[in-house]
Amino acid sequence: MKKIITPNKENWEGLTARPGINKAELTATVQVILDEVKQNGNRALLDYAARFDQVKLTSLEVTPEEIEGAKAAVSDELKAAIQLAKGNIEKFHQAQFSSEEKIETTKGVNCWRKSVGIQKVGLYIPGGSAPLFSTILMLGVPAKLAGCEEIVLCTPPDKLGKINDAILYTANLVGIKNIFKVGGAQAIGAMAFGTETIPATYKIFGPGNQYVTKAKELIQQDGVAIDMPAGPSELLIVADKTCVPSYVAADLLSQAEHGADSQVILLSDDEITIDAILSALEIQLALLPRKDIAQGAIDNSKAILLNSMEDCMEFSNLYAPEHLIIASENANQYINSVINAGSVFLGNYSCESAGDYASGTNHTLPTNGYARNYSGVSLESFQRKITFQQLTAEGIQNIGPAIELMAAEEQLFAHKNAVTLRLNDLKNV
Amino acid sequence: MKKIITPNKENWEGLTARPGINKAELTATVQVILDEVKQNGNRALLDYAARFDQVKLTSLEVTPEEIEGAKAAVSDELKAAIQLAKGNIEKFHQAQFSSEEKIETTKGVNCWRKSVGIQKVGLYIPGGSAPLFSTILMLGVPAKLAGCEEIVLCTPPDKLGKINDAILYTANLVGIKNIFKVGGAQAIGAMAFGTETIPATYKIFGPGNQYVTKAKELIQQDGVAIDMPAGPSELLIVADKTCVPSYVAADLLSQAEHGADSQVILLSDDEITIDAILSALEIQLALLPRKDIAQGAIDNSKAILLNSMEDCMEFSNLYAPEHLIIASENANQYINSVINAGSVFLGNYSCESAGDYASGTNHTLPTNGYARNYSGVSLESFQRKITFQQLTAEGIQNIGPAIELMAAEEQLFAHKNAVTLRLNDLKNV
Repeated sequence: MKKIITPNKENWEGLTARPGINKAELTATVQVILDEVKQNGNRALLDYAARFDQVKLTSLEVTPEEIEGAKAAVSDELKAAIQLAKGNIEKFHQAQFSSEEKIETTKGVNCWRKSVGIQKVGLYIPGGSAPLFSTILMLGVPAKLAGCEEIVLCTPPDKLGKINDAILYTANLVGIKNIFKVGGAQAIGAMAFGTETIPATYKIFGPGNQYVTKAKELIQQDGVAIDMPAGPSELLIVADKTCVPSYVAADLLSQAEHGADSQVILLSDDEITIDAILSALEIQLALLPRKDIAQGAIDNSKAILLNSMEDCMEFSNLYAPEHLIIASENANQYINSVINAGSVFLGNYSCESAGDYASGTNHTLPTNGYARNYSGVSLESFQRKITFQQLTAEGIQNIGPAIELMAAEEQLFAHKNAVTLRLNDLKNV
Repeated sequence: MKKIITPNKENWEGLTARPGINKAELTATVQVILDEVKQNGNRALLDYAARFDQVKLTSLEVTPEEIEGAKAAVSDELKAAIQLAKGNIEKFHQAQFSSEEKIETTKGVNCWRKSVGIQKVGLYIPGGSAPLFSTILMLGVPAKLAGCEEIVLCTPPDKLGKINDAILYTANLVGIKNIFKVGGAQAIGAMAFGTETIPATYKIFGPGNQYVTKAKELIQQDGVAIDMPAGPSELLIVADKTCVPSYVAADLLSQAEHGADSQVILLSDDEITIDAILSALEIQLALLPRKDIAQGAIDNSKAILLNSMEDCMEFSNLYAPEHLIIASENANQYINSVINAGSVFLGNYSCESAGDYASGTNHTLPTNGYARNYSGVSLESFQRKITFQQLTAEGIQNIGPAIELMAAEEQLFAHKNAVTLRLNDLKNV
């Protein structure tokens, strides 16, 4: 980690910069894949499975037998762990149902909102070495709670045409019926346009590599929504003297093992604390199975000494981290200083892993500075809020004259007339 | 209006299709403007004002004197109307503050969300013949309620370098301090990248012509969020025998006068009702000042007879209208049938004009079928919801073992280690 001692504020902006990602050359490649899926449907998907996943699939759909096999294969301990996590995620997202009342804004003018689930949603779950079944919980649980009628899940098969058991077990536990063996940009195309077997969806969620990310960006131009723009995962820790240095080091490494492009930043108002954390980090790093990956991320990351905890929080807000750990026994006193962050972990026992898996909060969060203008995935991500209004005769009489004046000023005379007609009729009653 | 009698369901999809918009050739033009603003800041804005707005500006900023002049120029009646509308919009959006509690998902694991205003937002208000001061209320009121620290408003000047009085009055009433004389794609660029005088913002809201819309689409690639994708405004009315045909006709025309590309659809289960509405429409149309514009939209629109009100609601959900009027004395019995719509107007006195101006609901709504996957603008559009979590020693002991198992299965051993370290320490306490 690069140690930086009390940089001047005019240099902070530069220190918060993310590495630029050049995605321009990807566009053409991914657009070809999307067009191919749009035109040739399943045939394109089977061709890409052969080419990219090195597997000759006979069917794209996961069968009930495969689900049963996965249920038998997953250990009871892991099942219990997944069920515990699911329970907590359900509790936290269930509480996000808003019960908004009718508002009578003026006598006779009633307005309200109603949350309605998005009818068709697509979930993408990456495959590869690490089977991210936890992401199925994070996306599938709120989709189910929101009442999405059709939930489609795509995930790439391995070279034997199989899907990881934990993924199938979790998808089935959540209640997802439509599971397809499709990965990469082609999976995003399939869930955007639909094929003979895969239903088209209105909004697509989930992480993925640069091809998946680019495909999600592109299909928005076809009217399909996505969860949020993506970038490499990141963690910023603000630590003071009351932190436990070995915990902070472990948390930094848990972020770093995601990949060499992971962003890790440590801020403190105390240099001795920084040094203690960096020492603990060296020791722990050497013992990690994925130490090469983590080392890459750590090499690119920064430990910054600042003048005060207030400065640390100010820097954090400028950086707008996906994950923010406030490693301090006094973490609660900084809650109101948090302006830009995706998810915040308070105190020495709230490690990022808790939120990644099992505390109940969602782990699909805005990266790359997007915490300034986006929220993480929540129940609302799977809903729309439809406004309703109902005016009585008295209601239109109360606000009608104001509408007439405003519409006339905006030169929208038919808008005015729609009110005038009603008011005139009511005068004659 | 084209009258269509009980089309087969297999033809419904075709009937809900919006006219295709070819925006490809626009991209290059708009990208040049954005690049120019990014590079040359104010100088580019002044050049474009000269070129596109035919005005030589000495300053981009609206002065306090101009605000005072506008306050004096707007009539007391219009001021009162705008204030009434503002009051209702405030009431409705104020009620959208959610008071979420801390959820203890497992003993010792506390999770919650906190809504925080987006620090910097940009509002675009079109100029031209119709000064849309109502849109300032719809965007400025929730921005203020959300606590956005910096609200920037751009709107094009006329050929004398002036901004419409009602726009300045309304912006000042709402409490917007940063008002700039910039229009078109260049305004979007200015609010995205910032210039010497115009602050860069994190999210940009507001309607506009095809250049503005394209610019909003493009600046997302620079990390700036936008309110929602845009398309021509649209209204679908479901009317039964209990409607008032002249009101339905007036409402259809109020949508049609927005422009020849406006989408207007009438559905009914009763042909006599359709004919009565079409007759009333002919009479009213002839009297409108903007009759040529409205005629164009009406020529492209459809009146469709269906077999039942249930079919009407099903068709409406397939179309997913921006505005849906249920013109029936029994409108309330169809509330639960609404799945895809932006804003719904119930009964014979709830005209679209009410929601456009003064009832309190927002008039910035998803068009072009986006009501399937997007909500209209609300208080939440100006906020992010940040999740917080705090685990006690007991909390990490309760969920830690599940996290260890899941992390190991996903082969994220540093994630596991962050928990193991803490659990081991607690064993030794």
